[in-house]
Amino acid sequence: MLSNTINHLIRELSKLPSIGEKTAMRMAYHLIALPKSQVQSLAQSIMDVKDKVTLCSVCFNITDINPCSICQGDRGKSDTICVVETPAHLAALERTGKFKGTYHVLHGVISPLRNISPENLKMKELIKRRQYNKIKEVILATNPTREGETTAIYLAKLIKPLSIKVTRLAQGIPRGGEIEYLDESTLQSSLEGRREL
Amino acid sequence: MLSNTINHLIRELSKLPSIGEKTAMRMAYHLIALPKSQVQSLAQSIMDVKDKVTLCSVCFNITDINPCSICQGDRGKSDTICVVETPAHLAALERTGKFKGTYHVLHGVISPLRNISPENLKMKELIKRRQYNKIKEVILATNPTREGETTAIYLAKLIKPLSIKVTRLAQGIPRGGEIEYLDESTLQSSLEGRREL
Repeated sequence: MLSNTINHLIRELSKLPSIGEKTAMRMAYHLIALPKSQVQSLAQSIMDVKDKVTLCSVCFNITDINPCSICQGDRGKSDTICVVETPAHLAALERTGKFKGTYHVLHGVISPLRNISPENLKMKELIKRRQYNKIKEVILATNPTREGETTAIYLAKLIKPLSIKVTRLAQGIPRGGEIEYLDESTLQSSLEGRREL
Repeated sequence: MLSNTINHLIRELSKLPSIGEKTAMRMAYHLIALPKSQVQSLAQSIMDVKDKVTLCSVCFNITDINPCSICQGDRGKSDTICVVETPAHLAALERTGKFKGTYHVLHGVISPLRNISPENLKMKELIKRRQYNKIKEVILATNPTREGETTAIYLAKLIKPLSIKVTRLAQGIPRGGEIEYLDESTLQSSLEGRREL
C-alpha cells in the first residue's frame, strides 16, 4: 500500500551492497524528508561517478583525470609498484600516507570458483609497465585470503625472473588486537614473522 | 588521492542514515562497476521520490496520488483510525495485513528536548477528520518510548471528551522473545496485560 515511487526507490537502494530492505526503507524516508536541492545533489553525484570516472591507463585506479594524479606526479617515476586487488584497497593504503610509490590495481583476484583467471585481471598491463618505468620492487598487497595468496604466488612467479624484488605485506596481530581472541592462522603468521627488538 | 568525483559521492552517501564512510565507499565502488543504465535508474528513482511523492491530504501518509490509495478506497470510510508516528511505522503495520481501517501519520512525537510541540505535528488535522468521518475508535500506535507515551497520553486527553474510544497497542513479550533476557519494563507490561486463556 506504499506508493509505487517509493517502492521502486526501495528496490533500487536494496540492490546496493550491505543495504538490506529495512535500511533501504529508512534511506527512502530520509530522502523524502530532505530539501529537494540535497536530493538532487545526491542524484547528480551518482550520475557523475558514471560519467566522469575512468580507469587510469597506467595503474588502472579509478580517476577523473588520465593518467591519475599519482601516476602523473613525482610518484609516477617511482621504482616501486604496490599491487592491490581493488581501488578500495588502494584508497585504504593511501590513507596511511606511508607509501610513496605507484600502485597497480588488478581489479580482482584469481578465482577458479568465480571463473576469474589471470587473463581477466590487469596482469599483462603490470608486466608491460617495465617498458616505461625502471621497476626495482613490486609489493604484492593482495588480501591474505586463499585467493589473494594464490594471486600473489602467481604474480611472484611472473615477476621474479625479471630480476625485480617481490615483497608481500606483513601478516600478524593487528594493532590493538587481543592475542586471546585471534585466530590460529594469524597467530602463526605473527610467530613466523617475528622481529628482533 | 582518490578522484574528486568519487570523494564527492562518498560524502553525499555518508549523509544518509545508517551509512558510515566505509559503507559509502563500498557503495561508490559498486556504482562505478555497474552498467550505466542501472546507475541512471537509481539516480532517477531518487529524483522521482522528491518530484512525485506528496503527503495524503487526509491521513498525511506519503503517496503518489492524493488522497492516498488507503483513504480513497473502501477503507477510507472505516470508523477506526490508527495513529502512527511516521510513514515507516504505517508501512510496518500495513505489512501485518491485519488492520482494515485508515491511518493518521503524526510525522513525529511530542519532544520538548527536540523542540517538537503538538503544533508541529498533524494533531489538529486528526481532530478535524471528525467532520468527514464517523470515528468510533482511535488506536494510538506511537512507540512505547517515553516520547511516544507522552504523545499518546496527550492525544487521549484530546480525543476521549469527543466520545471516541481510544486504545493503545498491546505491550508485552515479542514473539520468539526470551523471558530471561527481556528488560524489566517489558516484562512488567506483559504481566499487567496478561490475558485469560
